[in-house]
Amino acid sequence: MPYSDPRLDRLNTPAVVVDLDIARRNIERFQAYADQHGLKVRPHIKTHKLPAIAEMQLAAGAVGITCQKVSEAEAMVAASPAIRDVLITYNILGSEKLDHLAALATRVSLAVVADSADVVDGLSARFAGEPAPLKVFVECNTGANRCGVSTPEAAAELAARIAAAPGLALGGLMTYPPARGEARVQAFMSEAKALIESKGIAVEAVTSGGSPSMMTAADAPVATEYRPGTYVYNDRSLVAFGTCSLEDCALTVVATVVSVPAENRAIIDAGSKALTSDLLGLSGYGLVLGREDIAIDQLSEEHGRLVSEGPIGLKVGDRLRIVPNHACVVTNLVDAVHVIGEGRSQPEAWPVVARGRIV
Amino acid sequence: MPYSDPRLDRLNTPAVVVDLDIARRNIERFQAYADQHGLKVRPHIKTHKLPAIAEMQLAAGAVGITCQKVSEAEAMVAASPAIRDVLITYNILGSEKLDHLAALATRVSLAVVADSADVVDGLSARFAGEPAPLKVFVECNTGANRCGVSTPEAAAELAARIAAAPGLALGGLMTYPPARGEARVQAFMSEAKALIESKGIAVEAVTSGGSPSMMTAADAPVATEYRPGTYVYNDRSLVAFGTCSLEDCALTVVATVVSVPAENRAIIDAGSKALTSDLLGLSGYGLVLGREDIAIDQLSEEHGRLVSEGPIGLKVGDRLRIVPNHACVVTNLVDAVHVIGEGRSQPEAWPVVARGRIV
Repeated sequence: MPYSDPRLDRLNTPAVVVDLDIARRNIERFQAYADQHGLKVRPHIKTHKLPAIAEMQLAAGAVGITCQKVSEAEAMVAASPAIRDVLITYNILGSEKLDHLAALATRVSLAVVADSADVVDGLSARFAGEPAPLKVFVECNTGANRCGVSTPEAAAELAARIAAAPGLALGGLMTYPPARGEARVQAFMSEAKALIESKGIAVEAVTSGGSPSMMTAADAPVATEYRPGTYVYNDRSLVAFGTCSLEDCALTVVATVVSVPAENRAIIDAGSKALTSDLLGLSGYGLVLGREDIAIDQLSEEHGRLVSEGPIGLKVGDRLRIVPNHACVVTNLVDAVHVIGEGRSQPEAWPVVARGRIV
Repeated sequence: MPYSDPRLDRLNTPAVVVDLDIARRNIERFQAYADQHGLKVRPHIKTHKLPAIAEMQLAAGAVGITCQKVSEAEAMVAASPAIRDVLITYNILGSEKLDHLAALATRVSLAVVADSADVVDGLSARFAGEPAPLKVFVECNTGANRCGVSTPEAAAELAARIAAAPGLALGGLMTYPPARGEARVQAFMSEAKALIESKGIAVEAVTSGGSPSMMTAADAPVATEYRPGTYVYNDRSLVAFGTCSLEDCALTVVATVVSVPAENRAIIDAGSKALTSDLLGLSGYGLVLGREDIAIDQLSEEHGRLVSEGPIGLKVGDRLRIVPNHACVVTNLVDAVHVIGEGRSQPEAWPVVARGRIV
């Protein structure tokens, strides 16, 4: 990947740049893997929050999209008629969100998840009078220790509750697995599926996800569907994990050196408002393309501090391209990304339609 | 501070709440200190990004505002006729930003900073033909090791360059000091000021800043002006530093428990898209009001994980109020904050006018 690109020379910095050629290659790469293994793809749009990229993913073969919040799903559906099938991988609670969910269910094929009777009962109370049942997946904890029921038995119990609940239908099982967690996914989900089926309830789908382990997703053959998010852009965390190479990183932050106050220190105009403070276990706040000897060791909101062992060799006005630690959170900071590729001679600003949708 | 507040019971969560009664008290507290010590106050608006709160600060006695980027200043000036005096504490580079700066200079009293000849020369080239000179402060590194010239001699040299540059006028000296850095500010700035004055150039203002040390700002009497930002809201980092108490925290994040998957673990609907990953040296991602036994030990974008030594004692649907580690970065994530106080019976949504202005 070039650390200097004439197409970016006139961008007002800091700017978040997305190379659509690379994004398309990333989309096609995973779709081909999934097709080969009979896995459906349902990308998580949290990474790009862009209707046009969701459309690229659907055109490549994705069966629908994944969103994390109701407002995020609403923004995507409102912006693209191609989005007809949405899974919201979140426990939805509270009358305001449930009303929005019910309205959305009249527009697209919609499913959500639940990991407790409280959530199931709330969904049922709201959807009991609706014309069509809401599909609900049981969220299972296969080791990430975030949400999810903790045993196959608990999954089966909750599945039965969903199947019996007015206004709801069992969608299947869902998990967000730990990295390299295929064996645990296979064991947990197979057992839960068998327990549910032994009650005479069908388990139509088992959905797993996560970009880090996506190229070994087929090692948990119980899964029928996979929900990668970050894979479309990739980032420094996925390079470190070995999922992709630097050349596969579609999102970069273009920054300008605004100060070189010491021989081994330079300051850029991108801080935590452009790169975020997400470390994801890494050291430093991003990778300066072409200058892996430099560490971004400190961020304040509008300043990034670059340090090097020897002379840093930068001057005021120099432009740098940075691969951030975590692409998804960068997207969420900016009103627009600047897309290049697919024949564009100049970057084109695309509004980040689903940015900041947290409810 | 109440961890439960009936005014917040109907907010769709997660929601960022600002208590204007507390914010006003914080504003008045520092203004009184500054007045007592003959310090001018020029608050940094990065913390709130709200014209109405800038107006509260100006009405309390502030001489103007501080912004970090040109676009941030433009948003604030466009939104409030009360904002007539703006210092942008940033090295401004590049023709697009300089054009915006020149346009802004025709509307308000404007000043910027510089820490290199490159920046000074760029400013001079753009402002040479303008009707009025642009005020430029020399940024000095008094120990924070971010931007700034590193010696009083270098400050004096750059000040002379500014004073001689077509289109520019010397504003004075500026620093963002390290915490408890009054002695270094006093020593550096006094020496730089004397060196500049020995050349027959007046140093009209010396501006320092930073909320952590604001209540000892007068221990660097060379400073004529102070630029606190976070003080208006305060946050967990300033409580930890001893600058304020929890009762002085005006900004909180209201979240709902969406899952209690284990006896000592609960998940809330606020993750890094609401609380941010900023740690500022602290452990955990915020303080749960009324439950200091709980740690927020992990964030993903839309989930916050709460853990406790003993039983966590929370149930799905419970609402919590969280004091974030760093208030400023939270403000930057949301399109609106929900203000309470000053007699409101319900929260009122205020658009965060200058959110996301990074260029």
